[in-house]
Amino acid sequence: MPSPALLETFPTPVATAFVIEHVSDEFTSVCPKTGHPDFGSIALRYAPQATCVELKSLKLYYQSFRNDGIYYEAVTNRLRDDLVALMAPRWLQIVADWKGRGGIRSRIIATHGTVPSEWARG
Amino acid sequence: MPSPALLETFPTPVATAFVIEHVSDEFTSVCPKTGHPDFGSIALRYAPQATCVELKSLKLYYQSFRNDGIYYEAVTNRLRDDLVALMAPRWLQIVADWKGRGGIRSRIIATHGTVPSEWARG
Amino acid sequence: MPSPALLETFPTPVATAFVIEHVSDEFTSVCPKTGHPDFGSIALRYAPQATCVELKSLKLYYQSFRNDGIYYEAVTNRLRDDLVALMAPRWLQIVADWKGRGGIRSRIIATHGTVPSEWARG
Amino acid sequence: MPSPALLETFPTPVATAFVIEHVSDEFTSVCPKTGHPDFGSIALRYAPQATCVELKSLKLYYQSFRNDGIYYEAVTNRLRDDLVALMAPRWLQIVADWKGRGGIRSRIIATHGTVPSEWARG
Amino acid sequence: MPSPALLETFPTPVATAFVIEHVSDEFTSVCPKTGHPDFGSIALRYAPQATCVELKSLKLYYQSFRNDGIYYEAVTNRLRDDLVALMAPRWLQIVADWKGRGGIRSRIIATHGTVPSEWARG
Amino acid sequence: MPSPALLETFPTPVATAFVIEHVSDEFTSVCPKTGHPDFGSIALRYAPQATCVELKSLKLYYQSFRNDGIYYEAVTNRLRDDLVALMAPRWLQIVADWKGRGGIRSRIIATHGTVPSEWARG
Amino acid sequence: MPSPALLETFPTPVATAFVIEHVSDEFTSVCPKTGHPDFGSIALRYAPQATCVELKSLKLYYQSFRNDGIYYEAVTNRLRDDLVALMAPRWLQIVADWKGRGGIRSRIIATHGTVPSEWARG
Amino acid sequence: MPSPALLETFPTPVATAFVIEHVSDEFTSVCPKTGHPDFGSIALRYAPQATCVELKSLKLYYQSFRNDGIYYEAVTNRLRDDLVALMAPRWLQIVADWKGRGGIRSRIIATHGTVPSEWARG
Amino acid sequence: MPSPALLETFPTPVATAFVIEHVSDEFTSVCPKTGHPDFGSIALRYAPQATCVELKSLKLYYQSFRNDGIYYEAVTNRLRDDLVALMAPRWLQIVADWKGRGGIRSRIIATHGTVPSEWARG
Amino acid sequence: MPSPALLETFPTPVATAFVIEHVSDEFTSVCPKTGHPDFGSIALRYAPQATCVELKSLKLYYQSFRNDGIYYEAVTNRLRDDLVALMAPRWLQIVADWKGRGGIRSRIIATHGTVPSEWARG
Repeated sequence: MPSPALLETFPTPVATAFVIEHVSDEFTSVCPKTGHPDFGSIALRYAPQATCVELKSLKLYYQSFRNDGIYYEAVTNRLRDDLVALMAPRWLQIVADWKGRGGIRSRIIATHGTVPSEWARG
Repeated sequence: MPSPALLETFPTPVATAFVIEHVSDEFTSVCPKTGHPDFGSIALRYAPQATCVELKSLKLYYQSFRNDGIYYEAVTNRLRDDLVALMAPRWLQIVADWKGRGGIRSRIIATHGTVPSEWARG
Repeated sequence: MPSPALLETFPTPVATAFVIEHVSDEFTSVCPKTGHPDFGSIALRYAPQATCVELKSLKLYYQSFRNDGIYYEAVTNRLRDDLVALMAPRWLQIVADWKGRGGIRSRIIATHGTVPSEWARG
Repeated sequence: MPSPALLETFPTPVATAFVIEHVSDEFTSVCPKTGHPDFGSIALRYAPQATCVELKSLKLYYQSFRNDGIYYEAVTNRLRDDLVALMAPRWLQIVADWKGRGGIRSRIIATHGTVPSEWARG
Repeated sequence: MPSPALLETFPTPVATAFVIEHVSDEFTSVCPKTGHPDFGSIALRYAPQATCVELKSLKLYYQSFRNDGIYYEAVTNRLRDDLVALMAPRWLQIVADWKGRGGIRSRIIATHGTVPSEWARG
Repeated sequence: MPSPALLETFPTPVATAFVIEHVSDEFTSVCPKTGHPDFGSIALRYAPQATCVELKSLKLYYQSFRNDGIYYEAVTNRLRDDLVALMAPRWLQIVADWKGRGGIRSRIIATHGTVPSEWARG
Repeated sequence: MPSPALLETFPTPVATAFVIEHVSDEFTSVCPKTGHPDFGSIALRYAPQATCVELKSLKLYYQSFRNDGIYYEAVTNRLRDDLVALMAPRWLQIVADWKGRGGIRSRIIATHGTVPSEWARG
Repeated sequence: MPSPALLETFPTPVATAFVIEHVSDEFTSVCPKTGHPDFGSIALRYAPQATCVELKSLKLYYQSFRNDGIYYEAVTNRLRDDLVALMAPRWLQIVADWKGRGGIRSRIIATHGTVPSEWARG
Repeated sequence: MPSPALLETFPTPVATAFVIEHVSDEFTSVCPKTGHPDFGSIALRYAPQATCVELKSLKLYYQSFRNDGIYYEAVTNRLRDDLVALMAPRWLQIVADWKGRGGIRSRIIATHGTVPSEWARG
Repeated sequence: MPSPALLETFPTPVATAFVIEHVSDEFTSVCPKTGHPDFGSIALRYAPQATCVELKSLKLYYQSFRNDGIYYEAVTNRLRDDLVALMAPRWLQIVADWKGRGGIRSRIIATHGTVPSEWARG
């Protein structure tokens, strides 16, 4: 079961603004219709305000989807919502790249706030 | 025969905005002039409003072009128009990359609405 | 001899706007100074207004430069001018990438009109 | 121990504006929690005002982190702060790409000032 | 000795605007401090006004730096200044990518005028 | 229907031995079980004895599989058998790379005769 | 639980020899020591004798490892043994590429019989 | 017209054995059937005995095919025969990679003598 | 200090032969002459006899070289000798790829026993 | 002037056999015919007997060719002969890859002794 309670934070180390991207190539959940596993790469990008997500807790949170039946679109939006609720960041974006099914591969982007110019030009 | 009736939708899972890209590398139709098959990669990108296109129905819709005689430019615009009619999305774009014919390869982009900033910077 | 008379057009299939790119990796002409052949890749990008260039006629037009003595800069601008005269497009751009001569490779970009946002963000 | 005292500068050779990027693929420090080494690639980008950082001193400064226990976020921000203090540049940016830990790889971007347009379009 | 006198020009073939990039992967000079050779790739980009630089003369000009002791930053800015003095272009940019020294590789960008939109989106 | 009668040959131009590879990235047939199209890249390699296969006839022969229901393994072996029957070559090999189905992609190699050393080391 | 009973076969379509490779990039099991998931790419290569493994049954068999606690070395050898027992092929090889753990990535190769020359030189 | 008379040689500089490969990506001739130009990359590999082919003369010899109507197979074998006649090398091999025609690209290998082990393992 | 005592083994899970490769991109030691750090990628390949090296202990063993002053050639041979002493494998090979120093990058291969054909053809 | 006297050696650290490759991408000399600089990548591979070449001395020896007028073939063979004379290795090979001149790029391989199987399969 997806478990946002697994997520932990730590205080942002500096007052000045910066942006972070964590990429996991090992996300897997289960298609609720076919029962077959889905595999994706999840990029989490955000500009922290007061707290950052702790890396190991993020990994365990991702693993909690392993046997959950949930569609692409729903996963992507849920990740955004859980992480925004956790950190209240200035900006947060989930870019999910799903491996092909039936010859079609998919990218879904869910965004909170405005992409900061530091990221766009980095 | 191209069959938009094959397309199915499901309601957008969240009220917040997000963007989707589905890429199929297995599109094929027939050149009406030479009778030779054309092969292309079709990227469908859109920002949903109330509904999303169901992935398996999209695949079957693409397959309905398999033995249809239709030009590059006409296919690309038809895909855009059929999918806009189906979903009435905030934004939709078809990027079709066609394999070379006579040493020339082609990309055709047909757009409905304005590219959202989340996509452009994603 | 470069022969724009070889170029043919067909009416744009739809009233809505779209953009097209045709890439030929097999362009060759002759350097007027050294007599050695030049080889380049030519990308033609345009937003049609009323007509589109027919693909096979474009190929024959390119082949008409094969034994013509003409400099990089002149070829690139001539391609733009001939194709603008043919189609009167909303936007047209030639991006020519020339293989190295004396250890220096060159790109020349000749533009007519303003790059449409659909292309820039595609 | 991180030693900003190792850093040396030289006067900017010209009055006209320019931008510089130095990339080191050999940065390593130690995770304060696990004691395991971290490995990253550090891109330093800046637009100098009066002084530039000397390349060999930059290398020795990076090496001074080798056995230091310090988190990703803290390193990236510290590099920015030390180098801004040294040079007072018009613009400075650290882009740190960290190798994966537990299947998650990370990029952290810390910026001082506004990205100049020469860089963004270079 | 760097010899801008080697540079030759020819009149711009057309009145309409266009942009040019010449890339040489074979630039070498000598570090004045260590005496070791430096190797770089030099991209010259410009929008001509009345004249263009002749390609073979550019190559000989680059070769005149072969045994010259000169720093990265100074070379890049000198190339810009010599070529701006020669052609008085609307825009000119030198992007120099230097091979690594001591595990750090460098890019230096020196610009004259404003990057034209044709280039940025090409 | 697969039509080997479409295949044509021409006499080998020289008496000395040589090897040929023709690669088509545009092969498609239909899965007899699911009715979904299959897509593959077909490499035909052979050492001719008295005749070579004519290239345009090979293309038309491949196209004759377009709407045929036939398994991966059967296609690959049939191509080998039809082409061996046509040319009686010293050596012939079909290497078929099939796009993924259900997350599994496949390569099938069917061989007639012994791989000549010229190929193996080419 | 790993379930070789899921595997199905079909008779080899031709008497002549050929070789097959099926590659799945979506294999996952669980590390029995840490409880964390492992992810790998599994290449199955074989030269059939009388039967071939059916592709969909292979996929379901792979999926049966999803929540099984089993080490890299044991998985690789088990796949070889189950598939050799199923088909009694002339040759069979499992090449498993496991994603990195603690900065170390691993490849394990388990072989039955002798690599046929068609494969080695294909 | 193909002109082997353009080829020049120079004496091998050392008595000890070595191997040479010259690769030209700019070979072009004309298809005798369609009149359309063919484009290929030609690799000439050889182990010299007493003489080596001079590089500029090789380039001019290749250019002499520019407007010649000749098939892939015939070109490849002719290059081998002309160059073997010129140099009488211990080993010589032409590997010609032709750009696609009708969706099929081709490689043709013509060999004289036995591939030396230095090459095969180089 | 290099500490082979950190290495642990586990019994080979099967009696049948197989081969293993572990690749670490995060090896670092110190040059005894200059005091500067060296960075390399270490591939350990072996065919086990009775025991396999445990992965986490291998990582800790590699980390024990972090502040050791030792030359490329000596490290590579020491790794081979320590691991052969630990496991007495049928075959073992260390392939060390060192990042460039002074513009020269190096690969060193130290081998024990004969490369098994399964590896060479895998 | 090429100066083999610059080369230094050190005793092989172990009695057991191993192989070494040093790759320099920064070799340059001058064409004696045109006076233009040549640029190449030099791979030195050898199996030491009693001594190894010291890396910094190798770099200085390569730099001594910088302003020397010498042909591709002569350089490659001279490097082999100088280094064989220095070390009397069991095996030594120079693989020189020269950047293109007139659209033709070249590889020259000069070998002393027999390629050891460890290298060929590494």
